[in-house]
Amino acid sequence: MSHVMSKETLGALIAPQSVALIGASATEGKLTARPLTFLLRHGFKGRIYPVNPVRETVMGMPAYPTVAAIPEPVDHAYILLDAEPALSALEDCAKAGVKVVSVLADGFAEAGPEGRARQDRLVTIAREAGILLIGPNSTGVVATATGFSCTTNAAFRADRLDTGRLAVLSQSGSVIGTLLSRGQARGIGFSTLISVGNEAGVGVGTLGRLLLEDPETDGFLLFLETIRDPEALADFSREAARRGKPVTAYRIGRSDEGQALSVSHTGAMTGSKQAVSSFLRDIGIREVEQFETLIDAPRALSMIRLPEGRPRSVTVVSTTGGGGAMVVDQISARGIPIVACGAASRAKLSAKDIPLGHGKLVDVTLAGTKYEIMKEVVSTLMADPETGLLVVAIGSSAQFNPELAVRPIVDAVAEAPPGAAPVMAFPLPHAPESLAMLEAGGVPAFRNVETCAETVALFLTPPKIEDPIPVVVPSAVTDLLSGAAPGILDEVSSGDVFEALGARRPAQVVLSPGDAVPETLPFAFPVVVKLVSPDLPHKTEAGAIRVGVANRHALIDVIDQMTASAEKHRPGYRLRGVLIQEMRRGLGEALIGVTRDPLVGPVITVGMGGITTEIYKDTAVRPAPVTLETAREMVAEIKGFALFRGFRGRPKGDLEALAHCVAAVSVIAGCDHVEEAEINPVLIGPEGDGVVLLDALIRRA
Amino acid sequence: MSHVMSKETLGALIAPQSVALIGASATEGKLTARPLTFLLRHGFKGRIYPVNPVRETVMGMPAYPTVAAIPEPVDHAYILLDAEPALSALEDCAKAGVKVVSVLADGFAEAGPEGRARQDRLVTIAREAGILLIGPNSTGVVATATGFSCTTNAAFRADRLDTGRLAVLSQSGSVIGTLLSRGQARGIGFSTLISVGNEAGVGVGTLGRLLLEDPETDGFLLFLETIRDPEALADFSREAARRGKPVTAYRIGRSDEGQALSVSHTGAMTGSKQAVSSFLRDIGIREVEQFETLIDAPRALSMIRLPEGRPRSVTVVSTTGGGGAMVVDQISARGIPIVACGAASRAKLSAKDIPLGHGKLVDVTLAGTKYEIMKEVVSTLMADPETGLLVVAIGSSAQFNPELAVRPIVDAVAEAPPGAAPVMAFPLPHAPESLAMLEAGGVPAFRNVETCAETVALFLTPPKIEDPIPVVVPSAVTDLLSGAAPGILDEVSSGDVFEALGARRPAQVVLSPGDAVPETLPFAFPVVVKLVSPDLPHKTEAGAIRVGVANRHALIDVIDQMTASAEKHRPGYRLRGVLIQEMRRGLGEALIGVTRDPLVGPVITVGMGGITTEIYKDTAVRPAPVTLETAREMVAEIKGFALFRGFRGRPKGDLEALAHCVAAVSVIAGCDHVEEAEINPVLIGPEGDGVVLLDALIRRA
Repeated sequence: MSHVMSKETLGALIAPQSVALIGASATEGKLTARPLTFLLRHGFKGRIYPVNPVRETVMGMPAYPTVAAIPEPVDHAYILLDAEPALSALEDCAKAGVKVVSVLADGFAEAGPEGRARQDRLVTIAREAGILLIGPNSTGVVATATGFSCTTNAAFRADRLDTGRLAVLSQSGSVIGTLLSRGQARGIGFSTLISVGNEAGVGVGTLGRLLLEDPETDGFLLFLETIRDPEALADFSREAARRGKPVTAYRIGRSDEGQALSVSHTGAMTGSKQAVSSFLRDIGIREVEQFETLIDAPRALSMIRLPEGRPRSVTVVSTTGGGGAMVVDQISARGIPIVACGAASRAKLSAKDIPLGHGKLVDVTLAGTKYEIMKEVVSTLMADPETGLLVVAIGSSAQFNPELAVRPIVDAVAEAPPGAAPVMAFPLPHAPESLAMLEAGGVPAFRNVETCAETVALFLTPPKIEDPIPVVVPSAVTDLLSGAAPGILDEVSSGDVFEALGARRPAQVVLSPGDAVPETLPFAFPVVVKLVSPDLPHKTEAGAIRVGVANRHALIDVIDQMTASAEKHRPGYRLRGVLIQEMRRGLGEALIGVTRDPLVGPVITVGMGGITTEIYKDTAVRPAPVTLETAREMVAEIKGFALFRGFRGRPKGDLEALAHCVAAVSVIAGCDHVEEAEINPVLIGPEGDGVVLLDALIRRA
Repeated sequence: MSHVMSKETLGALIAPQSVALIGASATEGKLTARPLTFLLRHGFKGRIYPVNPVRETVMGMPAYPTVAAIPEPVDHAYILLDAEPALSALEDCAKAGVKVVSVLADGFAEAGPEGRARQDRLVTIAREAGILLIGPNSTGVVATATGFSCTTNAAFRADRLDTGRLAVLSQSGSVIGTLLSRGQARGIGFSTLISVGNEAGVGVGTLGRLLLEDPETDGFLLFLETIRDPEALADFSREAARRGKPVTAYRIGRSDEGQALSVSHTGAMTGSKQAVSSFLRDIGIREVEQFETLIDAPRALSMIRLPEGRPRSVTVVSTTGGGGAMVVDQISARGIPIVACGAASRAKLSAKDIPLGHGKLVDVTLAGTKYEIMKEVVSTLMADPETGLLVVAIGSSAQFNPELAVRPIVDAVAEAPPGAAPVMAFPLPHAPESLAMLEAGGVPAFRNVETCAETVALFLTPPKIEDPIPVVVPSAVTDLLSGAAPGILDEVSSGDVFEALGARRPAQVVLSPGDAVPETLPFAFPVVVKLVSPDLPHKTEAGAIRVGVANRHALIDVIDQMTASAEKHRPGYRLRGVLIQEMRRGLGEALIGVTRDPLVGPVITVGMGGITTEIYKDTAVRPAPVTLETAREMVAEIKGFALFRGFRGRPKGDLEALAHCVAAVSVIAGCDHVEEAEINPVLIGPEGDGVVLLDALIRRA
């Protein structure tokens, strides 16, 4: 969209010179009176034009009958009318050249076919006029730097509106209020807060991309119920990563009930939880488990950095044994290595008679909570090259003596040389004063041990941002697929496609119906025989597959038996050929599947197949296609593949070949007319022997 | 212990008439000066006697050179001296007839062999004198009703010490301060807070049992790093359950690092995480995941009850769509069913023009947040017999208009008839006033959606308290075991024991070395043959097992080959016999194991064996022995047994017989001299065909 990159649009979005409130009520307390109330309360610096055809004035301001009657160009309009009148108002905005329009009304895509048609009309009007359309179903736009609180959200009744450097983009309007309230209570303000509503015009991705140009914004909080614009979201988050502006998301839908609600609540689609999570991770968005982490983590991530060369580990310092153990336990449970005080630091501190306890926790309890000791310990560990991230768990002194336990941390950080280890802190008691002191001093601090640990894990395992892989589908593949009929390709054709992609299959001979069995085969007996037919989806039941056929004589007999059996099973079935394959043995099997997720598009799944996939959900999922590196990661994630990693002295399987196969096959995601492709099973040979696909299918759209 | 049930001891513990502070410092601010400072600050009602041989007075109070010099009997003493002097002081207390003594010093069991010996001396002195000994390594005892803040914990520097109806027992002294500080900030006071230290004399279980007699205490919070007194803990928690006083625990040790720290920090042992969790659940202790739940849940659980007959489900009412969806998502993700507004209630509310939204969330957003509407909705749903627990998610109005959104909930609860559905609430914004209003009105309220959801799950899935099963080991089993030598029993003897317990094994014949193969066997060929020998632990490698032996002739040959192969594998091995078994086939296999956990004693494990047990940890663990009902639960927990529950049209396996076998075999836990027993595999036959043990071993102590 052309307006995305426009500075002018960005200005009209968050720092408009003029705003029209179309349908502003004059009755204080009414929903549609709120934007005006809040704009006045929070000192909006631009000009406000209430539009209300039946009133002369609204809250003492002159009212205008239409947008056209406003005496200057309007940058931003918020339409507060019901759905149908909102359409006319948008037309008026289009004529008047308004740049950005938010729409409050519901009754659009979430309201059945009629609503969807109405939404289409809304989008068409906006698109033709080049309007940046927010909503419908949007509680509005807030930009704190300009006091632009153009919102119906009751939370903006707050006496003050703190500025800040984090932007909020939320698919739930009400959750914006929650974030504002909880954030401000923690001393966290925001730069911009946008309720994206139905995202009919622009969504989270496009708005995020636009806000990346806002110098007031250092990071992003997303509250997601669905994903409507995966490409735009990917563009935004990859660019955000490039600029070092972290994007953190909380997502509804960890349960089926939650997913169902998102669907009914927003008219959105539902995708696979695993596919969506892998998509978000892939494009560099950090998904959080706990709601409070959505508030805590973004500030922490934009406050400190891990200097290059420092290890991705944590050293925990504590003035309280039990509390320190709790912090270690929680961080370690999230897979982050805990590292004890290094030998050099230990020697240095011991020389100053500072006892550090035993084990991995640096426990200074016995030294007593004294300013000099705390500062010495923190400074020493920050300077130690063996320290990754330093986490300080502070006991009761955080409540009663911040000067003894908290001030030294802040001072140590202030005086630290460049490249020192970064510090986070967790006061055990209820200690708002200490939290504020720490955060003012550049030390991310947490109210809960779990959000502390989750943020630590996010900080030390940053997303790997990969640019989207240019998909080059081999022309042989395109040729094969374009020749195929819609529906399921038979296994010979499916195998041809996978082979053209670079996968190996067993040596094979295909006989046309009626062909005689050749005198010799290009591979040894025993062999596997399958009837190729679109009418026999269940080969075993139809007697249409035989393994271990020992010689040519038996092969001839077997083919006769099989065709007879298939005819009996499914009279009049269409026989397309007889597939004879060399019989391969391996150490075990895997499955590879490519599907299209309704939310995030093509994804590839790797698993071991059988119960490990279905019962234990032991699968790895990624947006497809994948690089070889990602394919290796996927293979490494499958717990069941332990069987091929030398489990209990068994021979190792060729998992490297499997990763190559996964990467090669994943390219099929680039063929738009392939709806689904699966290799099940892939036979895994011993290390060095490679993998071969035993059965494969492709469904063409 | 006789003093456990003594009212006198309880009085001396939490409401002493007189307390001696042995080693009290006169220097304000010093650790050992704190108990006196805090007792004075919080208005202790009894008499205080500082014991300090080098001072005339301590903080203006007369000091005594020894306990003996105190002019009245002393109920409670806190010894603030170092380890060695503490021993002498305890002897003085013994002579002076002090009833309860807490000891601050470290340098005992956590400090190597010397410390352990010192601890033994401490315990002996206390035991002989009938003293209730708390610690060592204890920061003391606090009872709020009497202002008895006899503690070194800095958190009691707080200006006020709220009373309350929950007792805290903590293995970490410092965490008591955290709980006090966070609890008081949430309006939650405590009745008693005890730092149990090393639990050398009495531990959590014994103290909990004693505090059950305190009418001021309605529930318990435990902070655990280990378990030192499983029997006493079980007695306490079962009795607490009988009296309706919930016991909630937070445990360090979800990670290996956390476990390691607990060990080094407290000198405690480490047990299997799964065994300890199952033990706690079994005895009725609710283990929480999040630290804040340890504070939130006990009050909620002692505040409301689910009336008999109400379903164990949740109905969520919300004034905010996104916030309500978040609550539904979190509760549902914990496996609790979400139920929509019932038809009758919907009709009643619709008749009053109150829109409820669609889907399972009762979303009153559109109705606007009005007192009458909120009260009508909450009252109607509370009265509806289809409602289990009602959870109300309150939007911005909780912050700005508690009168509109929170007051009606409290009023509805106050006016509800007996048997109405209970209510919990979660305000989305930062709203301390609303939290306080709700809780004052008897509505448990939460600051975080995750602690709300976790508490909901604890509330609706109360522990099933089973009295310990009287273990009756069949005399045949005892006879077999007492006749056996220490070490591993051979498989014939192990099989004999399991058979005597009631497990089935295949029909078998055991030949003594040199016996001829009989003309006929009491079962049909093919058969399985195994050499019985203490020297061949790995039968397959030694060639000491053969399956599928087809007839007598082959059997004779096979035995010759096997003995030769075994002799070659392990020259001079001792042959004890030849085991010939009928060859059984089943649908699959399971394993059953009984082991002794170092912390919680005998536990039984059920799994499918192979990679599902080792890689996916797909096992069920319980304290052993188990009832048939518990055995069925265990079998139902194993995901992999889906294979025997009709997975993809497969025949069903006899899981009921497996449960019977588990219950029967579990009785072996009652044989003290059995260290470990395992059946691996148990063959699972088709439904109705039972299960048979194929291989078994028992290790005798």
